Amino acid sequence: MVCQKISFLCSLFIQKKIAFTFPMKIYNQPARNEWESICTRPTFSLKQIESQVQNVLNSIKEKGDTAIQKFTKDFDKIDLKNFKVSTEEIAEAENLVSDSLKKAINHAYQNILVFHQSQIETVKKIEITKGITCWRKSVGIEKVGLYIPGGTAPLFSTVLMLGIPAKIAGCKKIVLCSPPNKEGKIHPAILYAAHLVGATDIFKIGGIQAIGAMAYGTESVSKVYKIFGPGNQYVTVAKQLIQNEGIAIDMPAGPSEVAVLADKSCVPSFVAADLLSQAEHGKDSQVILMTDNEQTANQIKIEVEKQLESLPRKDFAQKSLENSRFVILKNRQEILDMSNFYAPEHLIIALENPEEAAEHIINAGSVFLGNYTPESVGDYASGTNHTLPTDGHARAYSGVSLDSFIKKITFQSLTKEGLNQIGQTVIEMAETEELKAHANAVRVRL
Amino acid sequence: MVCQKISFLCSLFIQKKIAFTFPMKIYNQPARNEWESICTRPTFSLKQIESQVQNVLNSIKEKGDTAIQKFTKDFDKIDLKNFKVSTEEIAEAENLVSDSLKKAINHAYQNILVFHQSQIETVKKIEITKGITCWRKSVGIEKVGLYIPGGTAPLFSTVLMLGIPAKIAGCKKIVLCSPPNKEGKIHPAILYAAHLVGATDIFKIGGIQAIGAMAYGTESVSKVYKIFGPGNQYVTVAKQLIQNEGIAIDMPAGPSEVAVLADKSCVPSFVAADLLSQAEHGKDSQVILMTDNEQTANQIKIEVEKQLESLPRKDFAQKSLENSRFVILKNRQEILDMSNFYAPEHLIIALENPEEAAEHIINAGSVFLGNYTPESVGDYASGTNHTLPTDGHARAYSGVSLDSFIKKITFQSLTKEGLNQIGQTVIEMAETEELKAHANAVRVRL
Repeated sequence: MVCQKISFLCSLFIQKKIAFTFPMKIYNQPARNEWESICTRPTFSLKQIESQVQNVLNSIKEKGDTAIQKFTKDFDKIDLKNFKVSTEEIAEAENLVSDSLKKAINHAYQNILVFHQSQIETVKKIEITKGITCWRKSVGIEKVGLYIPGGTAPLFSTVLMLGIPAKIAGCKKIVLCSPPNKEGKIHPAILYAAHLVGATDIFKIGGIQAIGAMAYGTESVSKVYKIFGPGNQYVTVAKQLIQNEGIAIDMPAGPSEVAVLADKSCVPSFVAADLLSQAEHGKDSQVILMTDNEQTANQIKIEVEKQLESLPRKDFAQKSLENSRFVILKNRQEILDMSNFYAPEHLIIALENPEEAAEHIINAGSVFLGNYTPESVGDYASGTNHTLPTDGHARAYSGVSLDSFIKKITFQSLTKEGLNQIGQTVIEMAETEELKAHANAVRVRL
Repeated sequence: MVCQKISFLCSLFIQKKIAFTFPMKIYNQPARNEWESICTRPTFSLKQIESQVQNVLNSIKEKGDTAIQKFTKDFDKIDLKNFKVSTEEIAEAENLVSDSLKKAINHAYQNILVFHQSQIETVKKIEITKGITCWRKSVGIEKVGLYIPGGTAPLFSTVLMLGIPAKIAGCKKIVLCSPPNKEGKIHPAILYAAHLVGATDIFKIGGIQAIGAMAYGTESVSKVYKIFGPGNQYVTVAKQLIQNEGIAIDMPAGPSEVAVLADKSCVPSFVAADLLSQAEHGKDSQVILMTDNEQTANQIKIEVEKQLESLPRKDFAQKSLENSRFVILKNRQEILDMSNFYAPEHLIIALENPEEAAEHIINAGSVFLGNYTPESVGDYASGTNHTLPTDGHARAYSGVSLDSFIKKITFQSLTKEGLNQIGQTVIEMAETEELKAHANAVRVRL
């Protein structure tokens, strides 16, 4: 795999004019038939952990809380008898969160609330023809599960992104699971946010155990109908397996990524900061710059190197830049074409007249327009959701929104006149499809 | 399995007052803790065919059209060299469809079009706060695949249900696959409907081959991003497997089902016709009647027996009634509660004041109100979609609609003032999540 990559890169060095050496791969005016390989994501097969994850899930299905306790001891190194976060623990967490962080969380909460509330749809009754009325009603999914990963950094922002639309949707049971640390605690900022969004049940359960507990239900955890949230490869596989059993999930998971479209109107230091902010996510995350200007690419490169020096996680970001590409394209149209071909999770448009460019975007998760809209505003507080389709899934999937927490039920109501009007059509079609009793259900009424 | 069922039924006969013997199981005022077993669907494990389906998929991925040709010969018993339906074949099909069927299809087309067009959403730009604007744009999924099963009856109605929203959504490539018969043809009504909805590529490919061809692409079939449509157990498993590889699908599949809620205001002969119309779908389909009135149940039972006699597929319908239940409940509230507990694909409300009852429905695919709205109108021509969540999936999934063929891309645009307003919040949150470069992407701009 590594060998192939090196030889591919070498062949590019030989065939093409390459402007600079750099951890990122650089492509200058590649032909269209090279786009596929340039836009390839780092891939990981998760097949090899599937049976291990399935075994843990089976055990949870069978033994409930006893299995949760065992796996929490095995994986999180803490022996918990009670997984539920108590009211006292929530009150304690509220005291531990600084006033400045509370203020920030509340500010983000407000913006996310406003945008997701704007997604509420009212019922529109449509008179198809006289006597035939059809409509759809949005109803919150009764029971949903939110998974918030643990690790060194507490992802309380994801609590807002999943919890706020769940609350607006009117989900009655909002179960939230997050792994306990070695002291058997969840980070106070997570608990503060969980309480703020109105999570109804909060559990100290992580990884496969959390997904299994919410999918099957245990003595203490309520079974839910849909599970949301990011996680490591074990969580990803667990979500896929329970989806095969009929539990809905938010979307397929993959490493985070950003594409930045930049022309000479961009501010190179801004673009460099955006590329680095994605690169710090993890060594598997991907960063692609698409530009029509070699000089702009050079300026951004110099800025990346400069800013990289002052980053506390320099080595880490440098590593992830190896998955990343600078692509110099012919013109604005080619930039937009390649962006749609790549279908990025995050898309920053640092082009002249970004609004016009945005109109041509057909595949992307979330789009950031102009020089004052860095990706990090959407990650936290602009109002949009940060749970987005990665790995090219933006071609078919939307990011999380209010829609993800509701289902739409269709209704139809016919008068006798309406049925008269449509009856012969239904009979003709049903009989051709050899469904006589379907035709009869109309005939008996006419 | 059969033994268990018989003994369960016997114990009910002993414990409870049962009104009549009948192929359907009858429950009179069951306790709440019995609801789960009453509402159980017939289950089938598809695990045993998974590796067979995976092998066929792998072969298609590797060998493309050559594999399609081989499996078409093996499974459909016809050796086709060219799978694509030609313009001549479509013209020929149009001549073969009777004028009365054309008229019916066109009538249904018009109603389905009107309802699905009403689902178009316009862009709403939301000013979250001064200088921060967020919005969502709906974009059609570029390439979609529709699967239409073969068999004795041509499911041209499903062509309308999938093709019309695909066309409204603006999907650029609409691939449609349906198995060839032994003469290497697709039923003319399917071709007529496919042409009407604007399918861009029509192929004579069935079963696993069709799903594999559309998921991976072959020399003749374009790879698509989302696959829709019903099918047998092989198609169901193939769709599940390709979903695990990141291709989106419409929803999980299961046998069709209807719940009818009826009180003394219903017309027993109408209800009986509705129950039988569902029963003719297949021997695994399920029919549940929920009523608060024993006399009504008796009247419906007599009508079912009477109408069953005159059905051409009497034995078949009788067989499927064995999966089915009559439940007599305490009152209207209990009827609504059990209906929501069951989460039916189709729900017929033959209760007094059906509009009021409809307001309490929280889990259902599509709902039919009152005495003149049989399920068959929604199956064909009222305007609503007939591709609906079965097997209790209505708890988390919606039926197919325009939404299924689009994704919503979020956009945000901040002015410098907007970024100033939100900057400190983003910095505070990013730093607490230990994402320094995220904070830096804001700082560099302030």
